[in-house]
Amino acid sequence: MADPLVIFTPSGRRGRVAPGTTVLEAARALGVDLDSVCGGRGICSKCQVAPGFGEFPKHGITARAQALSPWNDVEERYNARRGLAPGRRLGCQAAIHGDVLIDVPPGSQLHKQVIRKDADARAMVMDPATKLYYVAVDPPDMHEPSGDLERLARALEAQWELPAPEAGSEILRALQPALRAGGWRVTVAIHRDTPDARPRITGIWPGFHEGGLHGLAVDLGSTTIAAHLCDLDTGAVLASAGAMNPQIRFGEDLMSRVSYAMMTPGGAEAMTAAVRDALGDLAAGLAADAGIGADTILELVVVGNPVMHHLFLGIDPVELGQAPFALATSDSLRLPAGALGLRGVGAAAQLYMPPCIAGHVGADAAAVVLAEAPQDSEDLVLIVDVGTNAEIFLGDRRRVLACSSPTGPAFEGAQISAGQRAAPGAIERVRIDPATGEPRVRVIGSELWSDEPGFDAAVTGICGSGIIEAVAEMRMAGLVDARGVIGSPAQTGSARCVPDGRTHAYLLHDGPSGQISVTQGDIRAIQLAKAALYAGARLLMDELGVEHVDRIVLAGAFGAHISPRHAMVLGMIPDAPLDRVTPAGNAAGTGARIALCSRAARSAIEATVRRIHKVETALAPRFQDHFVAATALPHAHARFDNLAAAVTLPEPDHGRAPEQRRKRRDPAR
Amino acid sequence: MADPLVIFTPSGRRGRVAPGTTVLEAARALGVDLDSVCGGRGICSKCQVAPGFGEFPKHGITARAQALSPWNDVEERYNARRGLAPGRRLGCQAAIHGDVLIDVPPGSQLHKQVIRKDADARAMVMDPATKLYYVAVDPPDMHEPSGDLERLARALEAQWELPAPEAGSEILRALQPALRAGGWRVTVAIHRDTPDARPRITGIWPGFHEGGLHGLAVDLGSTTIAAHLCDLDTGAVLASAGAMNPQIRFGEDLMSRVSYAMMTPGGAEAMTAAVRDALGDLAAGLAADAGIGADTILELVVVGNPVMHHLFLGIDPVELGQAPFALATSDSLRLPAGALGLRGVGAAAQLYMPPCIAGHVGADAAAVVLAEAPQDSEDLVLIVDVGTNAEIFLGDRRRVLACSSPTGPAFEGAQISAGQRAAPGAIERVRIDPATGEPRVRVIGSELWSDEPGFDAAVTGICGSGIIEAVAEMRMAGLVDARGVIGSPAQTGSARCVPDGRTHAYLLHDGPSGQISVTQGDIRAIQLAKAALYAGARLLMDELGVEHVDRIVLAGAFGAHISPRHAMVLGMIPDAPLDRVTPAGNAAGTGARIALCSRAARSAIEATVRRIHKVETALAPRFQDHFVAATALPHAHARFDNLAAAVTLPEPDHGRAPEQRRKRRDPAR
Repeated sequence: MADPLVIFTPSGRRGRVAPGTTVLEAARALGVDLDSVCGGRGICSKCQVAPGFGEFPKHGITARAQALSPWNDVEERYNARRGLAPGRRLGCQAAIHGDVLIDVPPGSQLHKQVIRKDADARAMVMDPATKLYYVAVDPPDMHEPSGDLERLARALEAQWELPAPEAGSEILRALQPALRAGGWRVTVAIHRDTPDARPRITGIWPGFHEGGLHGLAVDLGSTTIAAHLCDLDTGAVLASAGAMNPQIRFGEDLMSRVSYAMMTPGGAEAMTAAVRDALGDLAAGLAADAGIGADTILELVVVGNPVMHHLFLGIDPVELGQAPFALATSDSLRLPAGALGLRGVGAAAQLYMPPCIAGHVGADAAAVVLAEAPQDSEDLVLIVDVGTNAEIFLGDRRRVLACSSPTGPAFEGAQISAGQRAAPGAIERVRIDPATGEPRVRVIGSELWSDEPGFDAAVTGICGSGIIEAVAEMRMAGLVDARGVIGSPAQTGSARCVPDGRTHAYLLHDGPSGQISVTQGDIRAIQLAKAALYAGARLLMDELGVEHVDRIVLAGAFGAHISPRHAMVLGMIPDAPLDRVTPAGNAAGTGARIALCSRAARSAIEATVRRIHKVETALAPRFQDHFVAATALPHAHARFDNLAAAVTLPEPDHGRAPEQRRKRRDPAR
Repeated sequence: MADPLVIFTPSGRRGRVAPGTTVLEAARALGVDLDSVCGGRGICSKCQVAPGFGEFPKHGITARAQALSPWNDVEERYNARRGLAPGRRLGCQAAIHGDVLIDVPPGSQLHKQVIRKDADARAMVMDPATKLYYVAVDPPDMHEPSGDLERLARALEAQWELPAPEAGSEILRALQPALRAGGWRVTVAIHRDTPDARPRITGIWPGFHEGGLHGLAVDLGSTTIAAHLCDLDTGAVLASAGAMNPQIRFGEDLMSRVSYAMMTPGGAEAMTAAVRDALGDLAAGLAADAGIGADTILELVVVGNPVMHHLFLGIDPVELGQAPFALATSDSLRLPAGALGLRGVGAAAQLYMPPCIAGHVGADAAAVVLAEAPQDSEDLVLIVDVGTNAEIFLGDRRRVLACSSPTGPAFEGAQISAGQRAAPGAIERVRIDPATGEPRVRVIGSELWSDEPGFDAAVTGICGSGIIEAVAEMRMAGLVDARGVIGSPAQTGSARCVPDGRTHAYLLHDGPSGQISVTQGDIRAIQLAKAALYAGARLLMDELGVEHVDRIVLAGAFGAHISPRHAMVLGMIPDAPLDRVTPAGNAAGTGARIALCSRAARSAIEATVRRIHKVETALAPRFQDHFVAATALPHAHARFDNLAAAVTLPEPDHGRAPEQRRKRRDPAR
């Protein structure tokens, strides 16, 4: 009689196996992606399968109930303790005795497909660099003296076909207690940068380790550090947290931090220590929130702009503050986290940092590319990641361009008189009645508009998306002119436009918690920021020889809150159908998470970054032209579909500093 | 006309090269070992050669004076600044235009042979894991943004055919300032564990680095840490230093340190920190003594017994204190020194530790094997390294056996009533007149015997070699009996044998600085120590089925000072012709130095250790038998050539503790 035929779904792999072969053995022999941590000992339950019995004409197979060995003691015990879903078997226990169809459910696949909720249900295949292996090790024998590590290596070779692993001193320290506590059975975490790299032991636990493996995806922003704790088996985000970047005390924006590093002996070191400490605190907090052991966090992916990237690595960022903006290193980096003295994670945790794209376009931008994949886009996409600098990508399957534009921190509420972080109490929505010039606002933490009954929120300031709406609404209500001047004679005027020193300010809110105004300086700051952003996008469009883009992705926390309509009124972004302007949330954080879960994604972004064409705004004369042209505020009544045509050319002195302009125009002088 | 023929000596390599080829290029093309750090830029002078002109019938060549291009500006400048020996040319400047004979002097060979003064002029070929490369790097270009590291990698590939190197954060930190200070020319230190391993940058200096490369060979003894600072180009020892092992304050001997680690929370960590600190201090001191920069110390080799090895690595040594004496790891180790927080050396220095042989036979023993090479010996050699434990090797080309014997610290002067370290004031030589029982001694730091006119040295104690001579001389003078009893009725007796509690002591020295006696307890301690040593050697001889050995090597500082004659009188070592008992000095330190200078030696010792057969004394019943038999002191008048036959069998209670014996025999009870 022929050997039994086994067919695995969904892979469709099939083959005949000797009677008595376990489903796990058959899966391995046929190259089916069936997970196992315990190596077939009936402990980990990772190899659960759902056998199918009956007629399967599509597969040309009939499976009788006796095709698998009966439910055994190991399965009984596992079911009693943890519960096994109906119809499920442990692949390492069920032996094949007749033709059978075996479905491998997604949870049992080592390289599972994970659907990303953040991005139009895009799929990602789990393939983290660190995996768990349960292994039984020979006890020591005085007649054949060999170290515990060497016997562990022999066991990994025999039981998992792994080459001899490396181990650092932190693992050597943990090795002997773990082997003895586990009765010569341990679970080890093995890190391999590529599937055939030399394995490195990065974690060890006595017996079978139930606590899973975790990774930390970190977006190191100039203002905020955002961290996501991920399950390296499922890719799920278990907890997320953000913290202010403590480097802010050394300088608000990137350039002031670079200056601090240049001017202050030990300044760069202090900023490095501050950010590493903050990251360690975040990691510890996330582990506590999720109820997991910090020693199970063994993978880290950190992204950030070049200055953050360098300071995190302990590299003085001075070269990034001056042409030619040379990075110390641009390629991706793989380092032991311990070499940076990171706390809150496993002692032998491994760090990956994606490549930087250019002196102004960092690993965070590479992560945005990883998340948004412009290089795979059928239509022409403009991706804008607004932070202290805006990173801008333009491209499609054929070609992707990138640049960085110095928007400054105005979009984040900095350099705005009443500006603040996007936190409860901050004005985030603004509407101004064009007839009366009267405003109404909505603040973070309140569902009501300020003119609705019951509104009683404290109004503490205005955040980035709020100032953009305010300026756009003021322009549409005729309260500022095309040059950006509040209350100039040509404008509608309003009782809320009040003299403010030598200029005017617009009283946006007056409530029990105080007055919030938009000053002339605020308008100027927004004009300069939005001009820089627009000019960067236009520069890339010139380079590609296009006059419009098919769609726009607004990345970053800011992009998630901004009103595309107001952004377009303001002339921040080029003209595009409103419904094709979409937020992408924290795309840099998403990209970091993808790199955390997939070695293939790491190789892919490294290859993609090499193909991206970088455009240096500082070297492009047209950038300055676009910038000057874009400082103006388009006409109040411009339609969205012809905004570009409606741009009013500014007066020639707009390239100067706001202070100079203000002085020259002050009627009182 | 045929291309010019060039013949290199001493290699004998020959070939024809295109006219105008430089000597350095020709050497590279022909695979001749000609050094160069600057890559042919006339800076480093490493490629100096001595061309030969005239008739060379032996080589079948006639070299005319015009065979090489004339002395050029670069050579002129170099000669003016540093001086070039007469007849020498710079290989990178001299171009070949006719048949010529080129001698490569030893100093210009990259893999130079170095004659070891310590060991019968044995030769060693220089092949350190870290080498210097001078390289010119492209400056950054905003149009083609790439990191400085990536451009350095491109330059190393183009100029030195090196694959892309790795670099840790400490190098990334130093990279940008070095490139700019050097005008885009730097010297990098590249570490490669094997000739085709991925290179790792471990040092970087602006321009051409004149300061050389250095390594530290460290023998981490239980009592003493000995360190040698070596030039990695020539293999020369530039400075040596020793320090007390600060772990002594946690426990005198190995077992008491293991106990301290077991009993005291944080105890192992404290001992680890102490020894790393001491090593850092030694490194800094040696660099200062030799006038070199600590940043040029980029290779470390550390050897030590298993407990020292584990504590240095931060591994709790508890398992080494109990059967089955399991090592955490037995294979060789390659680690960045920074991972252990070592100070006083380059931030990216690399550490190598040879393999341990067994739970009692450590990396220091492997280093002894490397230095003494029993596996290459034509005759049967017994190597004894006496420390707190004695490591013993027996073998020849065919087979090498190893064991460790628990001698305890008596041979180092510990557990001896007047014992002290081998330092000025310590008695190191003893002679006793058999007729009178009168002693004379010599102390470290004095050339005179105590009975010679002018002897005025302070006598502060007795060191290991002194106590051995004292006991042997006392036996030969008939002052102790075969059981080791001082002043028993059967003995000669002497006015110097004075009652000391319930036993007797022998007054060895009575001078202005006080009295030094040998007590009954001292004799017992030496008896137990020498019995353990002898029993270990006998056990290996049994295992090999031999009754005598051809030669004996006494390794260790102790071995250098011991009198072979007295050691044999005492029955410490098996019978062998006196002239074939030789000291080997600090063989462990020598082995560490060899491993520092040669990657091939590292591979060789790893392979040798795998082939050494380990005998565990604790498991061998015959060890106990030999030990009991060997506690006796041979007859006073035994000839060296029949010592073994003259051994008097001890009384049956000799295996018990000295206290018990003393009690039972005390005539006063």
